[in-house]
Amino acid sequence: MRDVSVVGIGQTQVKEHWDKSLRQLATSAVLNAMKDAHVDHADALYVGNMLSGELTGQENLGALIADEVGLRGIEALKVEAACGGGGGALHIGYLAVASGQFDVVIVTGAEKLTESSNCNTTASLAMAADADYETVHGISFVALNALLMRRYMYEYDLVPEDFAAFSLNAHANAANNPYAMFRAPITLEQYKHARSVADPISVLDSSPVGDGAAALVLMPTASLNGNRARAVKIAASTVATDSLALHARRDPLWLSAVELSSQKAYAQAGVTPKDIDVFEAHDAFSIMSVMSLEAAGFAERGRGAYLGREGEITPQGKVPISTMGGLKARGHPVGATGVYQAAEAVTQLRGEAGKNQVPNARVAMTQSLGGVAANAATHIFVN
Amino acid sequence: MRDVSVVGIGQTQVKEHWDKSLRQLATSAVLNAMKDAHVDHADALYVGNMLSGELTGQENLGALIADEVGLRGIEALKVEAACGGGGGALHIGYLAVASGQFDVVIVTGAEKLTESSNCNTTASLAMAADADYETVHGISFVALNALLMRRYMYEYDLVPEDFAAFSLNAHANAANNPYAMFRAPITLEQYKHARSVADPISVLDSSPVGDGAAALVLMPTASLNGNRARAVKIAASTVATDSLALHARRDPLWLSAVELSSQKAYAQAGVTPKDIDVFEAHDAFSIMSVMSLEAAGFAERGRGAYLGREGEITPQGKVPISTMGGLKARGHPVGATGVYQAAEAVTQLRGEAGKNQVPNARVAMTQSLGGVAANAATHIFVN
Repeated sequence: MRDVSVVGIGQTQVKEHWDKSLRQLATSAVLNAMKDAHVDHADALYVGNMLSGELTGQENLGALIADEVGLRGIEALKVEAACGGGGGALHIGYLAVASGQFDVVIVTGAEKLTESSNCNTTASLAMAADADYETVHGISFVALNALLMRRYMYEYDLVPEDFAAFSLNAHANAANNPYAMFRAPITLEQYKHARSVADPISVLDSSPVGDGAAALVLMPTASLNGNRARAVKIAASTVATDSLALHARRDPLWLSAVELSSQKAYAQAGVTPKDIDVFEAHDAFSIMSVMSLEAAGFAERGRGAYLGREGEITPQGKVPISTMGGLKARGHPVGATGVYQAAEAVTQLRGEAGKNQVPNARVAMTQSLGGVAANAATHIFVN
Repeated sequence: MRDVSVVGIGQTQVKEHWDKSLRQLATSAVLNAMKDAHVDHADALYVGNMLSGELTGQENLGALIADEVGLRGIEALKVEAACGGGGGALHIGYLAVASGQFDVVIVTGAEKLTESSNCNTTASLAMAADADYETVHGISFVALNALLMRRYMYEYDLVPEDFAAFSLNAHANAANNPYAMFRAPITLEQYKHARSVADPISVLDSSPVGDGAAALVLMPTASLNGNRARAVKIAASTVATDSLALHARRDPLWLSAVELSSQKAYAQAGVTPKDIDVFEAHDAFSIMSVMSLEAAGFAERGRGAYLGREGEITPQGKVPISTMGGLKARGHPVGATGVYQAAEAVTQLRGEAGKNQVPNARVAMTQSLGGVAANAATHIFVN
């Protein structure tokens, strides 16, 4: 297999885009990525998206977006893995270049959640859980995460404030990211008094619904020339799965898919957690950050929250996460999020992260989860 | 890139499966394919599906089906390209094996259209068209095809009866296929007096809505041993696109995506249309068969219908299509259909098609279309 590099990135701001359609958001991100990569053509396009059908009445996004960006005719497909579709699309794009099939591949993630013609967004997001055994009983997606957080606090004797650092770090970092949805830092007092969504998860433990698109241009590393100084190599690209339903897991407090895809990625890249300078975790809820840190090997079991309390998750810490705001504050346009994470990892490795720059960042890892980590796509980028 | 072979196939009957859920249908097809291939493990699973979210409230089918078939943990993703998602999933599975990444890959297509918790099926199927510029005006998917058929008849001076052979051939062949939805042949009289759906398309020009799942097991050709005598090689796997909206096409009566993906496939396999012994076309409507035969190079422009009238599309003809019933009579569980076509091509090349066997079939082509051929996935199989 050939080595693959990211040679261009593009992002739109995540927010409630009442004046832009899904195709317009995707087009903007893709054209920016192509401009950044100095390419005017591509062989294939893969789109990460979860809910275009349910919420905007539009399927076949691959062909639609290929046409909109002026590339009518090229291979184009949509990849879906619930909230992890962005990471899934990147993985397929990686395979398409690594295989030798294509020399220029565009990966985009695009999602429009705030303008729905058909159903409501909360009900649609619950389609990431098991329809026959979980959502049929009326439980929402945040409520499933609340069950985990409650049990986690009981097992490890924690209180909600022990999770505060994850939200504070995300909002502090988003303040410096022009593509982020929430650009104001928050205080511990605000966190403590935040409105409850599904006890014990408050609104400041939850990533927001938003619209947005991000894009990447991939090429074979060997084909890069002197003009590609800002290219970043993809050292690993892996996907692993778990049961959708929480009750079917041997140990609901352990994210097996995260562990499995992380371990495969470490092996592929030849690194260990200690080598990772930036970890863009899937912080859809504070509890997901904590459990991801453990399953990915950055903290002992039951000790993930302590990394936050001890200040180790900030850009200056030992395991910087959510360095551009994360899902929590950059925003979480579900199927697009995995592509935003990759664009942010590239930004860090290019040394272009401004006030959020992680010093001497050389190896970055992103993790895109679908459902309650029923699907985990892990990517490791090396400068 | 490595050569890839299909080493196992599995199918459920297409019908209204009121007693089986989407996951049960997929599980049945996958387990049958694994049994046929004599494998008890796989590295990855790709699922073709269009409407699981809209109609059954379930996304993240990749992880769900991997778990259901006893392969929890493996890489799994859903691929969507409207009605062409089955062909798209097969293409991704092909890339995953060809790249050298995986040695055993399962491709499944699964769709449940007749039992909807959320929306109605006709409205959901219209999501294959352009939501902002076509369906917003209220046009259904069959009506879009009716516009094409009306214009085609005007341009080439044809009447509806000129299309009859496509429906008669499909139903005659389905009679011998245990997996088909409609197993009774039809007569010309029945065709002439069939109820209109969207003038000039009648119910006997339209493929039926149905539930079903099919599956394939793919392995590197070089890894096959003496036990794999029934393996069939994938000589080409291509995808091409067109605009979703008909009004945006330079020539709405020419299926560019079909032409493009066919030409790429012929080049990859080193064959011409003359070498194709079996062509499983995407006969969602009679007009689609006719236009596909032209764009794929089997008939001159405006002459596709004549292949039917002259008896050349039957298993004994020059260009056998819909040899196991096609979308028209086997049934069209949209995202699953492309995988059924591949399973049928393999059946023909194995010489196991019974009364529908195409004599000396050695090269088979399948074509899976999304929207009005906004997406075309073409595969060529060689025995």
